[in-house]
Amino acid sequence: MKHLVITLILGLTTWLLSAQQDLFNENPIVSPQVNTDNTVTFRIKAPDAKSVSVSGSLDAEKAFAPITYEMQKGDDGVWSYTTPVLPSEFYRYHFTIDGARTTDPGNAFAIRDVGNLSSVFVIGGGQAELYKVQNVPHGTIAYRWYDSPGNNKMRRLTVYTPAGYEKSTEKYPVLYLLHGVGGDEEAWTGSGRAAEILDNLIAQKKAKPMIVVMTNGNVSQEAAPGKGSDGFVKPTFMLPHTMDGKFEETFIDVMKFIEGNYRTTETKEGRAIAGLSMGGFHTANISMYYPNTFDYIGLFSSALGVRPGGNNATSPVYQNQDEKLKGQMENGYKLYWMGMGVDDMPMIYDGNKDFRKKMDDIGMKYEYLETEGGHTWNNWRNYLSIFAQELFK
Amino acid sequence: MKHLVITLILGLTTWLLSAQQDLFNENPIVSPQVNTDNTVTFRIKAPDAKSVSVSGSLDAEKAFAPITYEMQKGDDGVWSYTTPVLPSEFYRYHFTIDGARTTDPGNAFAIRDVGNLSSVFVIGGGQAELYKVQNVPHGTIAYRWYDSPGNNKMRRLTVYTPAGYEKSTEKYPVLYLLHGVGGDEEAWTGSGRAAEILDNLIAQKKAKPMIVVMTNGNVSQEAAPGKGSDGFVKPTFMLPHTMDGKFEETFIDVMKFIEGNYRTTETKEGRAIAGLSMGGFHTANISMYYPNTFDYIGLFSSALGVRPGGNNATSPVYQNQDEKLKGQMENGYKLYWMGMGVDDMPMIYDGNKDFRKKMDDIGMKYEYLETEGGHTWNNWRNYLSIFAQELFK
Repeated sequence: MKHLVITLILGLTTWLLSAQQDLFNENPIVSPQVNTDNTVTFRIKAPDAKSVSVSGSLDAEKAFAPITYEMQKGDDGVWSYTTPVLPSEFYRYHFTIDGARTTDPGNAFAIRDVGNLSSVFVIGGGQAELYKVQNVPHGTIAYRWYDSPGNNKMRRLTVYTPAGYEKSTEKYPVLYLLHGVGGDEEAWTGSGRAAEILDNLIAQKKAKPMIVVMTNGNVSQEAAPGKGSDGFVKPTFMLPHTMDGKFEETFIDVMKFIEGNYRTTETKEGRAIAGLSMGGFHTANISMYYPNTFDYIGLFSSALGVRPGGNNATSPVYQNQDEKLKGQMENGYKLYWMGMGVDDMPMIYDGNKDFRKKMDDIGMKYEYLETEGGHTWNNWRNYLSIFAQELFK
Repeated sequence: MKHLVITLILGLTTWLLSAQQDLFNENPIVSPQVNTDNTVTFRIKAPDAKSVSVSGSLDAEKAFAPITYEMQKGDDGVWSYTTPVLPSEFYRYHFTIDGARTTDPGNAFAIRDVGNLSSVFVIGGGQAELYKVQNVPHGTIAYRWYDSPGNNKMRRLTVYTPAGYEKSTEKYPVLYLLHGVGGDEEAWTGSGRAAEILDNLIAQKKAKPMIVVMTNGNVSQEAAPGKGSDGFVKPTFMLPHTMDGKFEETFIDVMKFIEGNYRTTETKEGRAIAGLSMGGFHTANISMYYPNTFDYIGLFSSALGVRPGGNNATSPVYQNQDEKLKGQMENGYKLYWMGMGVDDMPMIYDGNKDFRKKMDDIGMKYEYLETEGGHTWNNWRNYLSIFAQELFK
């Protein structure tokens, strides 16, 4: 047995290294290496390079501000750098080799955010324990296509169903979870770690079992770049019709699909909606536009300031928003939650301040959490972890 | 409206370029660029690099043999290379910058195969039309966890259900589709393009609607690297217990889960099993070990030669395989299909030859297709495209 396996490995290794398929070609460099003291060592073999650096939100002091460290070349042609002690987080980073941005070739794990691939790693022991796959019951992640007559196309979305959903006969509440500008239906399961957060909170009985629906808010797209019939198009930051009311108007198609295809409560008490940045803007609008539909509203670093009141748009979504907001207040809801990083973009920070003032003026209740840092996934993962615990209770 | 969007873009751009989250930072380089004549131009900005090359199965003449092209530096610091005319295929490639292997920073799309990330693109107009997302009804891809008592753990698998499954009340046939050594439950939906192939063949009415179950054949793992509770472990080529019978013995756990959780025919006529390389070895064994269970068997570049007859292993799977094979023949089946690249590894090519001789000697029927090329995803995608059309008819 052992003999045969060794023969197999030797045979395949010899052959594959010189053969047709780039299957093997194992990179012997260990990178990143999370050390026991939570410093991290990055390494890359680039014997002929003149300069190599590592960039990411790797600053221990400044609330995950982006930083670039020059790496040092060893005699073996391996460049390396060891960071300061880093807090527990889910990290993204990239290398720059002689002026070219790249992923870490020693790290098999990368995430696309808009048009860039970044390598990733996690430091546990704190907040990021929620972001790790733990040995707990796991929900299902499904990529499904739904009919959106309002957009005249089939569109893709991501559905998280909690562990036990398939074998249960119960009806479940639903959280609609929206991405930011440049994102898509894969953002929350990628950088957002939504499946891990929900698995872990539900296993700890800190969150109720719920369905989480992650849509694509760019109505000009069928699906995330590379997943639709437009092929491997270069992702772009701002697409047409992402902030002109069309997504909000056609959100009914998403809800119809979910409530027609999943065992949901189909009640206001069983519906939550939240989003980050542009998704927070969509959330505020949708929760006003569909009266008496959502009992839980979450605005994470919501892009409210970029289109104050929506009064320049022609979509019915943006008409009479003051009245709509008042209607939302009068109809009632259980939680209107807002999270904001103190270092966020001034336009967004102030837009939220104005929106809160508007709510204060009419006596509309909300919870507001201001955290360190800015417009970052670190904050959005944290906000989801907090918001999810408040739902459906 | 237009004014607001421009304000937004300018505001966000200025801010994000200097800000906390690496969301924007759009790479203006176009790479890869598939030209109208099906040559491909690669570009990378690396102003300080001494040498940059592009590697992949980019040889138009030699049946997708791997090849490295040196790129040329322009005055603007952008290195480029244009390939010969390439046939219609799904391609993977990487750059080497001053000795370091990297993905293409201009290309947002990459696939992990074992421990390496490669950038990808597609050239349509031929075979690869099957590998593209087309404007046809799409099935659902779900990543689910099933209980495997035989391995004493929860394990992850990928399930493709064809368009219309969820709203139907009919029972569907099932194809179990197994990966090769170093692969996992994400291999067939990644490099294998299985969802696209099935969507397209079903839409063209060339294949019957079927459920496709893509397992993880490494029983020491819960899940693909990065998707289990062992975290972001470095993927390795050969794991313990991948070829000692344990996967085959515990395959019953997979079938029980699928038939207990999906509307399947639960008949021999409605069960197919196929796999590539190690997965072909698993397929041959499983189809012998579970008598009268599968009517369709597919061996794609099957790793039969690496453990001839299994007579040195202690698992019951490997005992009396000659008898088991005879039993399989006597019980009958509709199709035993084998595909093999003429340039495959000699051990594997000859192992298949020996196996076919054994079948010939006892009068056991099979279909055998020998194609150009070797042990490559190009062949496996093609074999799946052919095999899927023969099923459940």
